[in-house]
Amino acid sequence: MANLKCLENFVPSEGNVYSEAEMRNINIKILKERGVSVDDIAQLSYWAQSKYLDSLTIEEMRESVLEILGKRDQFHAILLGVQIDVLAEKGMLDNPLLNILTHDLGLFGLDEAIAISIAGNYGQIGVTNFGNMDVNKPGKISLLQKDKNRCNCFLDDIVGAIAAVAAIRVAQRHAIAKATGQLNI
Amino acid sequence: MANLKCLENFVPSEGNVYSEAEMRNINIKILKERGVSVDDIAQLSYWAQSKYLDSLTIEEMRESVLEILGKRDQFHAILLGVQIDVLAEKGMLDNPLLNILTHDLGLFGLDEAIAISIAGNYGQIGVTNFGNMDVNKPGKISLLQKDKNRCNCFLDDIVGAIAAVAAIRVAQRHAIAKATGQLNI
Amino acid sequence: MANLKCLENFVPSEGNVYSEAEMRNINIKILKERGVSVDDIAQLSYWAQSKYLDSLTIEEMRESVLEILGKRDQFHAILLGVQIDVLAEKGMLDNPLLNILTHDLGLFGLDEAIAISIAGNYGQIGVTNFGNMDVNKPGKISLLQKDKNRCNCFLDDIVGAIAAVAAIRVAQRHAIAKATGQLNI
Amino acid sequence: MANLKCLENFVPSEGNVYSEAEMRNINIKILKERGVSVDDIAQLSYWAQSKYLDSLTIEEMRESVLEILGKRDQFHAILLGVQIDVLAEKGMLDNPLLNILTHDLGLFGLDEAIAISIAGNYGQIGVTNFGNMDVNKPGKISLLQKDKNRCNCFLDDIVGAIAAVAAIRVAQRHAIAKATGQLNI
Repeated sequence: MANLKCLENFVPSEGNVYSEAEMRNINIKILKERGVSVDDIAQLSYWAQSKYLDSLTIEEMRESVLEILGKRDQFHAILLGVQIDVLAEKGMLDNPLLNILTHDLGLFGLDEAIAISIAGNYGQIGVTNFGNMDVNKPGKISLLQKDKNRCNCFLDDIVGAIAAVAAIRVAQRHAIAKATGQLNI
Repeated sequence: MANLKCLENFVPSEGNVYSEAEMRNINIKILKERGVSVDDIAQLSYWAQSKYLDSLTIEEMRESVLEILGKRDQFHAILLGVQIDVLAEKGMLDNPLLNILTHDLGLFGLDEAIAISIAGNYGQIGVTNFGNMDVNKPGKISLLQKDKNRCNCFLDDIVGAIAAVAAIRVAQRHAIAKATGQLNI
Repeated sequence: MANLKCLENFVPSEGNVYSEAEMRNINIKILKERGVSVDDIAQLSYWAQSKYLDSLTIEEMRESVLEILGKRDQFHAILLGVQIDVLAEKGMLDNPLLNILTHDLGLFGLDEAIAISIAGNYGQIGVTNFGNMDVNKPGKISLLQKDKNRCNCFLDDIVGAIAAVAAIRVAQRHAIAKATGQLNI
Repeated sequence: MANLKCLENFVPSEGNVYSEAEMRNINIKILKERGVSVDDIAQLSYWAQSKYLDSLTIEEMRESVLEILGKRDQFHAILLGVQIDVLAEKGMLDNPLLNILTHDLGLFGLDEAIAISIAGNYGQIGVTNFGNMDVNKPGKISLLQKDKNRCNCFLDDIVGAIAAVAAIRVAQRHAIAKATGQLNI
């Protein structure tokens, strides 16, 4: 029996490599099973950038989140992070790790380490934007952390990192467009 | 003639290595010449942690900032970052770098890269705390960035990183003391 | 039943925080169950620095490894990394993650991400030294990777990172001692 | 008078943003003035990957290096790193920084920090590959470091990071092509 229902009958590819469309599809299913939608993440990205970018729309962020959800590093982070969360939730990990994760010990920093490793994919400014989300916990991130029925130790950070990267990707496009006077870059 | 007045007659040691007391002393002088005091940084650290720690005092943060200002990585970051800022301010750098720094181009991320490299000295949570300061620019960080007479491109990030590390160092001590029921760790 | 035998009857502390001696003790037990000794790691550290430091002894590296094995970030990395390896080995993870880990897919970089997050604890030079070990796989790292009966996807990187940090810690002490003409720093 | 001859009459753009072709062109000119060619970097990339990839050609690495030289993060790192090197060479920096850079102090890690920040652009495996180059100093990196007439404190690390990223980019393409049985990805 699979730990995640949506992966119950998953048949892995021979080379363990997947196309962007496959990775995006799997990511969306896993996030859905854990209560996170593409729009939840797009709202976080919008929260991070709307004060800087006048013409920003949720739709633009939604497209950016979908783009990021097709990337391999993000795919691996979701696969691993959610798997650990679910195993902790089911009590299938050994102590002392089990209690560290289910109590979300503040001194445990490997959830942040994994999130930072994917937040830096579009430059160091993605890392600072992830830090802002991790500390201030807007919207969905706060809901994930407060959920008493689930262990979201890794998921809240990974969602924050994906939102940060999607936001920075859009911010960079706007900055380049503004600087060069072009709309399409 | 030195770029920084406080380093005018500085005689370097033979091995280019300095004691903690020497590094702290030089750091404080350089920061003072650039308008930043130890208390300015302690206030930033306090801002970051006071909502989490009931018994926190400014004095505790001040001591933590002084401790961090004696570390070699922070010393090197202040020496290099402030030197670049001052050279940019004096117009002594080549374009296109000169204009990128004096206009504090948002797409330029090497100031954040240097800050992140020292923010991680006490674990990844220092990095997220630096991110929070870098995005939300409390107190002195905002003043440094808005200063029209100076180029503080690197300084604002380095000050934020030192404040973040000093804050995390105190937060870790409190967390361990609380978890173990001890006051002195 | 515990995934790791050495953690079978482990009773977690109330605050999920442990002393340096406790963390060192648990780390050594887990590493032993996975076939890695303190001396194995000390040999890796020695391999990394012996060409630079004339007076280096294995004993000095052994002490440095023991020091590092008492640190919290390293403790958390060993707890998490080895747990994932063992669960993969037992086939208890969902696909596609399971096959990615058991086949040690080269494009999977989260083992390196966790290792890099602890390799940077004594400065960025720890990260480059970890990189050297990760690519060239001296001694025990190569044996861990080639072991057909076990999944050491995370362990080989964590062992390399601990060896790198222990080595850099000794190298820094030697460099400071040489520069200042002192033996005890 | 410009610090770098090739930037003597450079007129910066209004928004301080440049096209990929402009950035590549400036990067190549600066590297040439400091004695580094595109082929030098391609040879380093080839050194890093030729033992893993049977069908690898220097030409493939050369194209990858040219691609990377058009990226903004790499552009900023070259602009800043070479500028610091040249100012150190001309004695235009204050002590103690000046002597730290001209003696390439081993305990100084900000050159590695900048290099690591760009080495991670294609995933954490770029960081480990940079570490391998930084420690083992193949070909051009060794020549840059031994050059007595110049200060290449930052340049050798930046060249290593660019070579590492270019190499990983090619390695990832080969790995995906092999796993999916396709040649063009």
